[in-house]
Formats: sequence, C-alpha cells, structure tokens
Amino acid sequence: MRIRFYNARIITFAEQQTTGELDRNIIDGELWTEDNKIIYVGKTPAELSGSAQDPARATLPPFNREIDVQGNLILPGFKDAHTHSAMTFLRSYADDLPLLDWLHQQVFPLEAKLQPQDVYWCSRLAVLEYLSSGITTIFDMYFYPENFVQAMIDSNYRAVLVSALNNFYSSVANMEEEYHRYNNANPLISYFLGFHAEYTTSLDLLRQIAALANKLQAPVYMHSSESAQEVKDCLSRYELTPTVLFDRLGIYNYGGGAYHCIHMSDEDLRIFKERKLSIVTNPASNCKLASGIAPVCKILEQGINLAIGTDGPASNNALDMFREMFLVTALAKIREKDAACVPAQQVLQMACVNGAEALNLKAANSLQVGKLADLIILDLQQPNMQPLNNIVKNVVYSGSKSNVLLTMVDGKILYEKGQYAANFDVERIYYEVNKVIKRVKS
Amino acid sequence: MRIRFYNARIITFAEQQTTGELDRNIIDGELWTEDNKIIYVGKTPAELSGSAQDPARATLPPFNREIDVQGNLILPGFKDAHTHSAMTFLRSYADDLPLLDWLHQQVFPLEAKLQPQDVYWCSRLAVLEYLSSGITTIFDMYFYPENFVQAMIDSNYRAVLVSALNNFYSSVANMEEEYHRYNNANPLISYFLGFHAEYTTSLDLLRQIAALANKLQAPVYMHSSESAQEVKDCLSRYELTPTVLFDRLGIYNYGGGAYHCIHMSDEDLRIFKERKLSIVTNPASNCKLASGIAPVCKILEQGINLAIGTDGPASNNALDMFREMFLVTALAKIREKDAACVPAQQVLQMACVNGAEALNLKAANSLQVGKLADLIILDLQQPNMQPLNNIVKNVVYSGSKSNVLLTMVDGKILYEKGQYAANFDVERIYYEVNKVIKRVKS
Repeated sequence: MRIRFYNARIITFAEQQTTGELDRNIIDGELWTEDNKIIYVGKTPAELSGSAQDPARATLPPFNREIDVQGNLILPGFKDAHTHSAMTFLRSYADDLPLLDWLHQQVFPLEAKLQPQDVYWCSRLAVLEYLSSGITTIFDMYFYPENFVQAMIDSNYRAVLVSALNNFYSSVANMEEEYHRYNNANPLISYFLGFHAEYTTSLDLLRQIAALANKLQAPVYMHSSESAQEVKDCLSRYELTPTVLFDRLGIYNYGGGAYHCIHMSDEDLRIFKERKLSIVTNPASNCKLASGIAPVCKILEQGINLAIGTDGPASNNALDMFREMFLVTALAKIREKDAACVPAQQVLQMACVNGAEALNLKAANSLQVGKLADLIILDLQQPNMQPLNNIVKNVVYSGSKSNVLLTMVDGKILYEKGQYAANFDVERIYYEVNKVIKRVKS
Repeated sequence: MRIRFYNARIITFAEQQTTGELDRNIIDGELWTEDNKIIYVGKTPAELSGSAQDPARATLPPFNREIDVQGNLILPGFKDAHTHSAMTFLRSYADDLPLLDWLHQQVFPLEAKLQPQDVYWCSRLAVLEYLSSGITTIFDMYFYPENFVQAMIDSNYRAVLVSALNNFYSSVANMEEEYHRYNNANPLISYFLGFHAEYTTSLDLLRQIAALANKLQAPVYMHSSESAQEVKDCLSRYELTPTVLFDRLGIYNYGGGAYHCIHMSDEDLRIFKERKLSIVTNPASNCKLASGIAPVCKILEQGINLAIGTDGPASNNALDMFREMFLVTALAKIREKDAACVPAQQVLQMACVNGAEALNLKAANSLQVGKLADLIILDLQQPNMQPLNNIVKNVVYSGSKSNVLLTMVDGKILYEKGQYAANFDVERIYYEVNKVIKRVKS
C-alpha cells in the first residue's frame, strides 16, 4: 500500500545530522508512505510535477492513493504520554472533587464493578477520540491489559502499556510476565514497567519493583508528586519525597519517569535531570482536580524531557491534545507571571517529539524516510487558522481538534474528514459503553 | 420562513414564572422558529407525531424546512461578552509579551496602520470563527464602527458595540452621536457607552464620560483591573482603585460593568454587587498575557452577574467558547485549591444566559416562545460526548467546537455541518485578511 500526500506544508521535526537540532521549518512539498513507513519527504520530484498522464510518472512505482493536501499542514502525530483510556466510562460521572476523595469515593468503587470486556469497549471509544484530536500513540495505564491490547489491535492503534501495579492489583511476577508477553505481542504494542503511585504501593512492593527493573534493565513510570498531600504523606512516612524515595530504592536505575510532577523539589528535578528521566505533564486534569500547576519552566530550564498527557477522561474530561497544548503554555505563563515563557514552538515539539522520547518510540518522532507512518493533517483553511501569519502559533494558540483533517497510524488512514475507517463500528462502540456506565452505576 | 427542529434534546434556560429560577432540565421534544422568533418549544404535538403524509398536519401552518436533530442538543447560543473582532489581523503576530508591552510595542503600532475597510474584512473573519464555536452574539470594542456594523449586517450577525474612547481615539461628542445612531441602525445592532481603560483615559475625559452616562441614563463598560500594574498605577494616581474611581465619578450610576476584573478589592466587588454591574471574565487571554486568574468564586458568591468573553484574537488567540468555558472552571479550581467550585451547570449558564444579561439582550437569553431565534445544536454523537452520562458536564468539560452542528442567528441558519450560509464568501474573507496582515507588517 503506497500513499502520496502532495501539495502539502510539512513540519518534519527531523534531527539535523550536523547539529542534532530539530528541523522546525515548514517545507512545501510532499510525503509518501509505503505500508507502515515513510519512504519520501521533500519537494515534488520532476517525474510528478507534470500531469497525471505524463509518461515520466511510469518510471516511478504507482501509488494506491494520491491525496491533494491543498496546502494544509502535515505533522508527526501527537503522542498522549499519559492516559487511562478505558476510563471513558466514568466521563462526567465523578467530577468536582479533589484527587484523593475523587479516587476513593468515586473512582475505585465503580472500577471494582468493571468487567474485562468493558475495558475493550471503553478503550475503543477513547481511540475514536484520540484520532479526532490527532493523537497517534498513547501511553496507557489501566487494568485488564489483555482486553486493552485487543482493543488497540482491532483499532490498528499504537499504544504503550504501563503496569498499574499497586497493593491491591497485580504482582511483580505478573508484571514480569506481561513485560515479556506484550513487548512481543504485536509491533503496535509495547510495555513498560510501572506502578500506580507511592501512596498505593507498600515499601516492600516498591523494593520488588526496583529489583525487577534492575533485573530487566528497564525503565519505570508511575504517578508522582501530583498533589501536595501526597508529597506531605510520603515525607511523613519516609522523610523523603516520592522521587528521592524511588531513586534511593533503585527504581530509576534504568530510566523512566513520572506523570504529573507538580510538587517537585529542586532535588527531585536534579534526579530527573541526572537520570535522564521524562516528565509527563497533564495540565487539564491538574486544574480539574485542583492539584496545582506543574513547574514547566523550571523543568525545561533543566533540560528534562517534558511530554504532554491528557490523563484519563474521568479527570480531564476530554482527550484533546489541542486543549492540553494551550494549557501547558497558558498555565506556565500564569505560574511564572511571565507571558514570554514556553513559546508555541516548544509546546508543539513536546506533543510531537518529546512524547516519542518518553515512550521510547524514536521511530515515530519525526517525518523522515524510514520512520513510522504516524502522521496527521491539520486544516489551515478554517477561520481559527487565519490569517496564515505564523502557522505554529496558530496550531498551539488557536488550533482545535476541528482542524484535524486526517490521522494516519502505522500507515493506515484511520480518521479522515470526520469519518472513521471500516474497522471502527462507531455506533456499536457508543452502545456498548453506554451499557457499561448504566450497569456500574446501578 | 418557518423552521422545525424535531427529535431534539433541549435546554431552554427558561425563567420559571413561580420561582424565577432557570429551567436547567433537558427536555425531549422540538422547537419551531418563524422569521427571527421562537414560536414553539415543547413535546411533539399530536398533529406532527404521525408520518409526513398524516392529514392532521394540514391543520398546522407548513414549515419551510424540517430538521431531524437526531437526539442532539439545542441550546441558546453562546454570548461572547468581550471581544475585539477585527484583531484577527494580529492573530499569532504579537504573542508571548505581558499586557502593557504587548499593547505599546506590538498592538498599537500595527493598529495605527489599519484602514477602515480592514476592519470590515477582519470582523467578517471573526464571525466565521464565532459561528463555528456556537457564539451567536458578541460584545465588541474596536475602531471604525461604521465598517464593523456593515460587517455584522452583511453577516446577519448580532452584535453589541461598545465605544473604545480614550485619550487618543474618539470623543464624548462622537460617542453620543454613535450611541443614537447605532441604537437605531438595525435590529441586529446595539451600542453601549464605554471607554478603553483608566490608564488610557484622562480624569477630565472620565468626567465627561460620567456626564454623558448620566445624561443618557446609560450603562458604561471598560477594561478594568486586568493587570496588577494597572491597579497599582491607578492607586498611585488617585489613591483609588479603577472601580472605586469610576464609581465616585458617577460612571456606574446607570449600571454597566467591566471586562477582566482580575485584581479586585472587596470594595470593588461590593460596588459591582450594589450597582448590579456585570463582570466579563476572559480566562484564556488572562493566562496568555500572564495577567492572573480572576476571583470567579468570590464574584459568584456575591451574586454578581458573571459572563464570559474570549477577548480579541490578538491576545487569546482563539474565539472559542468551549475553551473559555473549560478555563473558567479549571482556573477557579486551581485558584481556590477547590475541585468542587464553579460546577459545569453554572458555567454553561454564564455562556448562554449571563452574557445576555450583560448585553441587555434578555430577548436572547432563553429558548421560549417570543424570544429571538438565536440557537445552536451540539452533536452528542461524537466520542468526546460519550457516554451520555451527564450531558451538561460533557458540554463544559469535554465539549469542543467540533461538536457544533448548527448555529442560527436571528432565525437564519448561518453555519451548518461545517458550511457557511451563502452570505459568507469564505475564500474572499481569508484573502482580504491575509492582505491586511501583509500590508501592516511591511
């Protein structure tokens, strides 16, 4: 299957061989995919500049489809670097509560009623929403991985799972088994070691996790420093912040990182920098749970890899990378009282490139020959993208999911002009998820 | 022209005759419009429950169009209660600067190069964006009112103008003339007294404005208490906050209100309460200029009418009521460290009803017989609106402009399924606005 996108503006984010800098220029040209890879990015070659009947075309292999991008923008797909897809079932159910009450009073009791097959349908609903927002890959923490993985494979969607291990769910032995199974299940799927959070994980269990991370030489991810209370409780338990505790236990010996990271000490940030850990920021969820504003400027100044996640739909409640991109910079400006901090270009890079770094998916971090064909097209011919004065600023400051014209994952067009590919039975997905929320609420 | 919307969910926000409370229920039924008014809201009458061939239908006057809403949601249109439409020409031009630098270094020099006809085209571009976000009325402050009004009339769009009078622009005599002219120009247009802000308006001019407000017994609006520096400067000039200064001068004797109102003293809020003034909050712009977070909870506790505005596209940069609605509650939760504050229902009311109150447009504040036919339809059959657990929360917490199926202003459908009515030449508008930004930048 060979697809040609022509008459396009393209931001490749390609790493420059000489400087190592990312190419942030907007080029005019075209991009070709073959199966799940990019096979060409650049100017329109002479053979294709003429009409469709030009005999020069015969010297090139034929395309299965040629898409006139009409001057719109091709970008590497957005990476949603922290989410709980299956929590779509709790969207608009448990709102307007702080983190710990929200978890204990609303989320945990309803999650206890979830069936494995529910996770399949709720995750499929989430994929519909990711595609409509230009998200091509997710970093997902939830239960029933078998059903989640099946949902991703049936969706032809790229996902990295991370274990939600804690005192009440799963075990280190189980996590080790899943690590091997899901890192070899399907090229669309990979698996990271992880656990829910310090406050749901005993010291003994943390030690076992550290031992496994060291045995497998693998990175580890978890929720960390999300609320002030969480850090306070951890300090009173161990006289250490969560980050320092994890580091001392050896959990971060082979890298990884954490989600949220709002209440971070200087020592915490130093550890992130030295260990080359990633931070995934979740601004909408952090506002909605009143958790706080992450120190994004400080994180960037340290050169720590910063990616963006939506968090789950029970706390956000949208799975919308445009809203998150705006919030990353808007909240940083408010926090630092500095309208100049975290410019648009940096935010777009977080969504497209830094997410791939956090997920160990460098094959999807740019639009270059040989990279994975995970890409999106944004419509610049809508009023919120006009005038075309600064396209990157338009995307970050006034862009919206309504600008997403097309989302391609692993070489397949899954979403195009508001329509989903044939492997999504949208009405069936809605029907099944509405059944789930009715059942668990009753 | 008679239009029937059937098979709909409807939130009317109708005022209950007995209690004065607003009806926030979601009713299943239909809504009819005739010319620019609503003529029916309620259950499907017996005459229409049968097939289109049912002879009972003949007893009702015929419809020019019948729209199957397919279970989607009809709402009163959103009111954007503070904007500068024509500033679309500066979108993504001047970003990442604090308010006063942004104004003096970037905005004012380029505005000086604007021609009257530029305001026409830039305002028409803004209307395209308002319609795509379900905004049916705007409260607009800018220059060249003649051209702005023409843009609104050609768009069939409802707008309230407010004077941008200041030391460098217009005069009180001119404002008085405009007040009479534009309050009698066209039923779509009305006009409020106003001025830019304390820091651009001399004491002598403020006194003249107060005299005119008292002569015309008219409300007055202006930017106020937007940045900490502005309040500090006003205090050092007059030993009074802007609100107290305006009140002492008699500017608020006949009501009105202010935009932004971030840095408000208790006395300021008391004046707003006692004078029954409105506050228009502009959360995205306030973040982007690092101005601060408005004390939304305190304002609501006082019972002050709180409406929502996008502010202009030079500072926001989107004209998107969904983004603003989420930010109003998200930022309040962060500011108060209280995830329970400013629930979704209250936010939706700000956008649909409180805006009409601020604009003195009670004829457009609800969906009831005799009210203006300004309404929107939101698509609930998109993944961000599923499951249908709590529709109002879905709209505020996960809704997006991509859910706007239809926008009707004054009985005319101006936007439907991504397409604009015939009175919008979209390509021409883009062409003209791109020409403007190229010229003023050169």
